Amino acid sequence: MLDELKAAVLAANLDLPKLGLVILTWGNVSGVDRAKGLMVIKASGVGYGEMGLSDMVAVSLADGKVVEGDKRPSSDTETHLALYRAFEGVGGIVHTHSPNATAWAQAGLDIPAQGTTHADYFHGPVPCTRDMADSEIEGDYEAATGEVIVKTFQERGVDPLSVPAALVRSHGPFTWGRTPAKAVENALVLEEVAKMGLWGAILRPGLAPMGKTLLDRHYLRKHGPGAYYGQ
Amino acid sequence: MLDELKAAVLAANLDLPKLGLVILTWGNVSGVDRAKGLMVIKASGVGYGEMGLSDMVAVSLADGKVVEGDKRPSSDTETHLALYRAFEGVGGIVHTHSPNATAWAQAGLDIPAQGTTHADYFHGPVPCTRDMADSEIEGDYEAATGEVIVKTFQERGVDPLSVPAALVRSHGPFTWGRTPAKAVENALVLEEVAKMGLWGAILRPGLAPMGKTLLDRHYLRKHGPGAYYGQ
Amino acid sequence: MLDELKAAVLAANLDLPKLGLVILTWGNVSGVDRAKGLMVIKASGVGYGEMGLSDMVAVSLADGKVVEGDKRPSSDTETHLALYRAFEGVGGIVHTHSPNATAWAQAGLDIPAQGTTHADYFHGPVPCTRDMADSEIEGDYEAATGEVIVKTFQERGVDPLSVPAALVRSHGPFTWGRTPAKAVENALVLEEVAKMGLWGAILRPGLAPMGKTLLDRHYLRKHGPGAYYGQ
Amino acid sequence: MLDELKAAVLAANLDLPKLGLVILTWGNVSGVDRAKGLMVIKASGVGYGEMGLSDMVAVSLADGKVVEGDKRPSSDTETHLALYRAFEGVGGIVHTHSPNATAWAQAGLDIPAQGTTHADYFHGPVPCTRDMADSEIEGDYEAATGEVIVKTFQERGVDPLSVPAALVRSHGPFTWGRTPAKAVENALVLEEVAKMGLWGAILRPGLAPMGKTLLDRHYLRKHGPGAYYGQ
Repeated sequence: MLDELKAAVLAANLDLPKLGLVILTWGNVSGVDRAKGLMVIKASGVGYGEMGLSDMVAVSLADGKVVEGDKRPSSDTETHLALYRAFEGVGGIVHTHSPNATAWAQAGLDIPAQGTTHADYFHGPVPCTRDMADSEIEGDYEAATGEVIVKTFQERGVDPLSVPAALVRSHGPFTWGRTPAKAVENALVLEEVAKMGLWGAILRPGLAPMGKTLLDRHYLRKHGPGAYYGQ
Repeated sequence: MLDELKAAVLAANLDLPKLGLVILTWGNVSGVDRAKGLMVIKASGVGYGEMGLSDMVAVSLADGKVVEGDKRPSSDTETHLALYRAFEGVGGIVHTHSPNATAWAQAGLDIPAQGTTHADYFHGPVPCTRDMADSEIEGDYEAATGEVIVKTFQERGVDPLSVPAALVRSHGPFTWGRTPAKAVENALVLEEVAKMGLWGAILRPGLAPMGKTLLDRHYLRKHGPGAYYGQ
Repeated sequence: MLDELKAAVLAANLDLPKLGLVILTWGNVSGVDRAKGLMVIKASGVGYGEMGLSDMVAVSLADGKVVEGDKRPSSDTETHLALYRAFEGVGGIVHTHSPNATAWAQAGLDIPAQGTTHADYFHGPVPCTRDMADSEIEGDYEAATGEVIVKTFQERGVDPLSVPAALVRSHGPFTWGRTPAKAVENALVLEEVAKMGLWGAILRPGLAPMGKTLLDRHYLRKHGPGAYYGQ
Repeated sequence: MLDELKAAVLAANLDLPKLGLVILTWGNVSGVDRAKGLMVIKASGVGYGEMGLSDMVAVSLADGKVVEGDKRPSSDTETHLALYRAFEGVGGIVHTHSPNATAWAQAGLDIPAQGTTHADYFHGPVPCTRDMADSEIEGDYEAATGEVIVKTFQERGVDPLSVPAALVRSHGPFTWGRTPAKAVENALVLEEVAKMGLWGAILRPGLAPMGKTLLDRHYLRKHGPGAYYGQ
């Protein structure tokens, strides 16, 4: 069972450079087994060219301690854990520094829903978190990074399952999904809508978001009980 | 005969990711057999990596009912049908979310004819449709999408055969041509002129379109009875 | 002898899509044999995937008549001829619609010498021609296109051998060199400096060109009797 | 020993085009053996396709004279030497014309630390040098290029080991590291943060740099005695 999860997390990690979302070691994917109370995440600082199953580290969802694996888990482990603990129904999480999404994060701006490409995946703007306080940065920084995402969604009343992505201010994107593979797909879509949104900002500065009726129609034709997209 | 059309539509669909016009399942190509009253289009939500002839679905041009194939046709089927019904002489239609063309659609702007690259394929600006009304979005949305394109061309008096592309506002591009392959070529060209136009907007905000005499010369040296380009 | 020139022109044409300078059939390279009074150029509208030696057409430098080859030469043949006739020492010419250079041409702007990348190849700004008159466009258009380039260089007193590139307004770039391969290299460099110049226009609108002393130093360390770059 | 350094410098040079940092012959990597007082650098004007160990030239760190190798060393040799002499602890240096970093250099602007991608590698903004004086350009130009970088770091009190990159105004980037491979990695990161910074300038003109606490946290979690990133 854990072998299956490790294989899924490895495959999802290897997709990141193939999809152009990550260079060097700038990204990580995790997956969770909620029944066993375990999260599998890639080891810290491992290159994608040489990555194998032995670089997948299992940690306890409860306290973050390594349960299986010889290596140190990703330095972002506590961020992933904070998200799994708060967001029920999430089975996989991705962090990248994909350049367009990161540019929005650095600019400290939400990515507005400008069109149906966005609406097919995200039921509203992708939130950018506030600046983190010095005490958060100097303390348990990676856990606080997860918590600032969680608070942002709570304070704005956004359902993380219908907007499966966040920008951490001055940092970069996190995305999630029911599986690690789905979280990677959302990371790819986020980068694409970030790119289109950047170009829209050139063509029409101050561009208003798309209408709510169209946003709902497109999101709901792919998600939920009324969905009619796909087989 | 239908086998030949299916093969042509499949080949045209497979070209979309190869040409960088589509990621994931974000596009579809159809072709029409007007004598038989049939349209062939890809099945909904099928990935390009696994696509084969069995994913090509034949529907009736008259009422959109599936005539051949086990799968559900593309969710955009009714949009394609509306265009075939209104635009005589069109044999293939393409829909993508190619990023530059989509950025113009999201900005709600026509792509102006800024140079000969555009004029070689499109005899004037590529129109962007108006916002769709809530009643259109909440009703038979995909058919209404086709109809708003048709109305835009009618109201502006644009010949769809000499400007074989449209932007649907807050959505993305549709292109067409005498064959599915030609419609794909027009989708590629549209993305390229959208990119050049975006960069022109940076270099010279408010850039005026090219002169009419040059537009005509380039369009007519490749199209119509006086054409002298090619073999 | 003509075989050698045809092979060189074919190889140079095939480099255009490999270098990302051309999609579809949007470019052409020619080479000249001044002793024989012949120019070799690719046939009109031939795709790069299927191009071979039989698509290289030899025309007379004096009157443009086909001397060898079954196919119609490029529709831009008269533009190339006008440049060879006016610019002594030029052995190869390239025309593309490479997107960054074309965006500058569509904006009607010279590409300024902003840095040493430019100065290593072009001893000053790359000129953009004036708008062509209706009479030029409606008459012998392709010859007039060459002539407006020649006039631009003459009126500004620019030596075409030290600035081996021009932008034709609302159209795109032409580059040249002592050989077809060198003309392709200049087309690649032009696209690169056009890209950097576009991005510079974003970072610092109204950016002044580089200093003349640095421009001279870089151009002259690669060109002329005092050159000390390379082996 | 020198064989090992030559192999490392060759491998690092060959990485430049693979990583998209260099086209044509627009870049060079060197490495140093401080015990032997030698620097190895690629030969001038050699193409990356044909480059081998025999194109690696060893010169004296003290006076720049060729010690081993049949070819002329890179025209930028004296720039590299000036940096090795001034910056202790540097083992490899890279020069490229990578387009985003070069655009910032041409604009004459420092690359600000806008986010954690930057902070993971550069402990503060990447400095852009002042304009070089005519006397510097007309004299021993390449040595003066190195010296203007060194002076910039000295005058600003920047530690070259914690900010291993500089932009030479109107020219392009130089990066360095403990090894040639590490210098190449820094060149890749610089290009990436230059790209993100350019896009940030579009999204939010006049964007302030990231906070100092976050900059320190990210730099120090990867560098120095308190680092906890990697295995």
